[in-house]
Amino acid sequence: VVHDGPVTVDRARAERLDAADPLAAFRDQVVIADPDLIYLDGNSLGRLPVRTAERLARAAREEWGRGLVRSWSDWVDLPRQVGDLLGIRLLQARPGEVVIADSTSVNLYKLAAAAVDARPDRRVIVTDDDNFPTDRYVLAGLAHERGLDLRPVHTDADDGVDLPALTRALDDDVALLSLSHVSYRSGAVADLAAVTRLAHRAGALTLWDLSHSAGSVPVSLTDAEVDLAVGCTYKYLCAGPGAPAYLYVRRELQEQLRQPIWGWFGQRDQFAMGPEYDPAPGIDRFCVGTPSVLAIYAVEEGVRLVADAGVDALYRKGQALTGFLVELAEAWLAPLGFRVASPRDDARRGAHLTLHHPAAWQICQAAADRGVIADYRTPDRLRLGPAPLYTRFVDGYDALDRLRELVAAGAHEGYPAEPARVT
Amino acid sequence: VVHDGPVTVDRARAERLDAADPLAAFRDQVVIADPDLIYLDGNSLGRLPVRTAERLARAAREEWGRGLVRSWSDWVDLPRQVGDLLGIRLLQARPGEVVIADSTSVNLYKLAAAAVDARPDRRVIVTDDDNFPTDRYVLAGLAHERGLDLRPVHTDADDGVDLPALTRALDDDVALLSLSHVSYRSGAVADLAAVTRLAHRAGALTLWDLSHSAGSVPVSLTDAEVDLAVGCTYKYLCAGPGAPAYLYVRRELQEQLRQPIWGWFGQRDQFAMGPEYDPAPGIDRFCVGTPSVLAIYAVEEGVRLVADAGVDALYRKGQALTGFLVELAEAWLAPLGFRVASPRDDARRGAHLTLHHPAAWQICQAAADRGVIADYRTPDRLRLGPAPLYTRFVDGYDALDRLRELVAAGAHEGYPAEPARVT
Repeated sequence: VVHDGPVTVDRARAERLDAADPLAAFRDQVVIADPDLIYLDGNSLGRLPVRTAERLARAAREEWGRGLVRSWSDWVDLPRQVGDLLGIRLLQARPGEVVIADSTSVNLYKLAAAAVDARPDRRVIVTDDDNFPTDRYVLAGLAHERGLDLRPVHTDADDGVDLPALTRALDDDVALLSLSHVSYRSGAVADLAAVTRLAHRAGALTLWDLSHSAGSVPVSLTDAEVDLAVGCTYKYLCAGPGAPAYLYVRRELQEQLRQPIWGWFGQRDQFAMGPEYDPAPGIDRFCVGTPSVLAIYAVEEGVRLVADAGVDALYRKGQALTGFLVELAEAWLAPLGFRVASPRDDARRGAHLTLHHPAAWQICQAAADRGVIADYRTPDRLRLGPAPLYTRFVDGYDALDRLRELVAAGAHEGYPAEPARVT
Repeated sequence: VVHDGPVTVDRARAERLDAADPLAAFRDQVVIADPDLIYLDGNSLGRLPVRTAERLARAAREEWGRGLVRSWSDWVDLPRQVGDLLGIRLLQARPGEVVIADSTSVNLYKLAAAAVDARPDRRVIVTDDDNFPTDRYVLAGLAHERGLDLRPVHTDADDGVDLPALTRALDDDVALLSLSHVSYRSGAVADLAAVTRLAHRAGALTLWDLSHSAGSVPVSLTDAEVDLAVGCTYKYLCAGPGAPAYLYVRRELQEQLRQPIWGWFGQRDQFAMGPEYDPAPGIDRFCVGTPSVLAIYAVEEGVRLVADAGVDALYRKGQALTGFLVELAEAWLAPLGFRVASPRDDARRGAHLTLHHPAAWQICQAAADRGVIADYRTPDRLRLGPAPLYTRFVDGYDALDRLRELVAAGAHEGYPAEPARVT
């Protein structure tokens, strides 16, 4: 039993929590190649589902190798089928509202452009300065291209979206509000319905980035009346590095919107190869090029696994895991100069927990050398992503124990203080 | 020995050609799941390389499963590494001019936009009306968005690019000329250097679609002084259905151009996640989102196989194969109402051969039921793509023999006359 600070925490408690975990069996559904490694970066790259490698091999051998071009009669529906699986089971979308396509950044560009083009009398895009870099850059590029103003509302990364500031920013010149549902830095969750309502009251459309929420936090696109959304599949959805992304367009808006990249997979009656572009009905018009079939099978496997676990159960476990980490951090790490960055209120926190420490980058490197994979975010954040699908409470316990030990011993001090710059 | 029409052709001659084929051994490097099936659609979807399935399984298991997020230190260079492999060995590009990214359509949009934005005083995009549908649509969308004119030069699909018509269209208001190197319908090859010179003389930039030439026809991007190019990897490059595409930007232009989708993989010093978008130096600025790692490994395997065979050898064999098909078609099929659509001059033909027949679609379906996979293109074209990497002369012989038999017997007449329309 460890006694540090006001709270008593022992490993047996973590073991009891694991024994009572209704999702415990899902750990066997992902590959654990190195049982000694504690992986707390599932919010950056999710683990490999056991079934994915087999599925890829089978699809390659049977559908591509044997079926050859004839398999396109099945493949052509795949982006919508897997989109529906993801949309209906994880995002509370309706059939035909989600499709797998392109990357998150390209989808963001397409939908943001479609939105501002549908509001030609409005000249402003609102986002917040804590939004994920690619979101900010894509919106800035679009604003530059269309001669619009990008209005970044200031958000304290640890607190999350600032509703009063957002309310002030949403005037009747705003065409689009684009935000992340869960902050990539602090894990703060925005109120999807309340913020969407604010935007609608101002006559603006909303475009949400769900990358850090899908598969770990309930997302109610229909109830919240969200207009547009995008997200990646390689974090909690375990679809693999750089796997294809998804996009959502509310059914009632599909026929009114037109995205700017007029590819043949967005064309009505595509294989007639007619002279003029005529956007397909429904969600297909937001597609562009030939879908990446094998990569979409990996998305399907990941999404199915997460859907089988169930978002509500994953959410509850994520809250419990990060709550447990908060307790440990208060007891063990606060005396060593750490400070919890994420919201302490469970209801306002996604499935990752962020800690401030002036030497966060050095600690991140030292932890990796001691078998704890965490993540660093500028300028002083150590991000712990105990993905609820496969992370145990004992993993959290052992990880923070190793962190405590290494920082107490000053083992991080020999590491570079600044990340190497990729040029 | 068969005597039909003026030419005498027998199967023994096909066998002798195969015995003398220096590329014969490459057939063992791709999966032939059904030895009775004659696959003449490698120009639509290339066969599965034997090594690809194994490579995907290994990368999934070791790099994703075991290495987890740490593998990004290797993955981050992959798009450029495989781009160089493709560019240097197959397209005569220089290092740092080709990168694997997105789909062909998205790449076409990015580069076409970058080109017209770099020529703000010019208001016209020239293409031809025989260009592949997605190219025409993407250019039309861009012209619509930027308020430019799209000027489609009329091209007779069977003859290929009409140089005098193109010369007339290229006035000093043209910002960009975008064409396909090899016509998807007839296989006619455009003169890359001559057409690029015409465009440059008019002060326009050139953007070539290499989808139907890379890996089957020599492409000399450097010698021809091509400005921009894109292409897909799932045809002759055997990277699998919907595999990631590539883009090429001539080194001297890279710093002058800026593409419109400002994603984080196009950002200088990406992981600093700074407040403002600042395009990376070199080819990276034409990237957008997170690259699809496993899918790029499949590109690497396909490209390496093609590069090992060698483009010059593939080109010679492609000419010999399609020339042999022309002979057979003249002898056997012309009397049955077929007419060769592709240029008869070997030097003006890519690696596929197209035949006109009023019942082309019915014949295509009947042929598939008899173990010959060909392709149909509007309105009356039967397209035969004997990819030189793995197609034998006996395959060509047997395919045309089966076609002759089935048409002579009227076996195609019971099939639907019009392709089903996908809605």
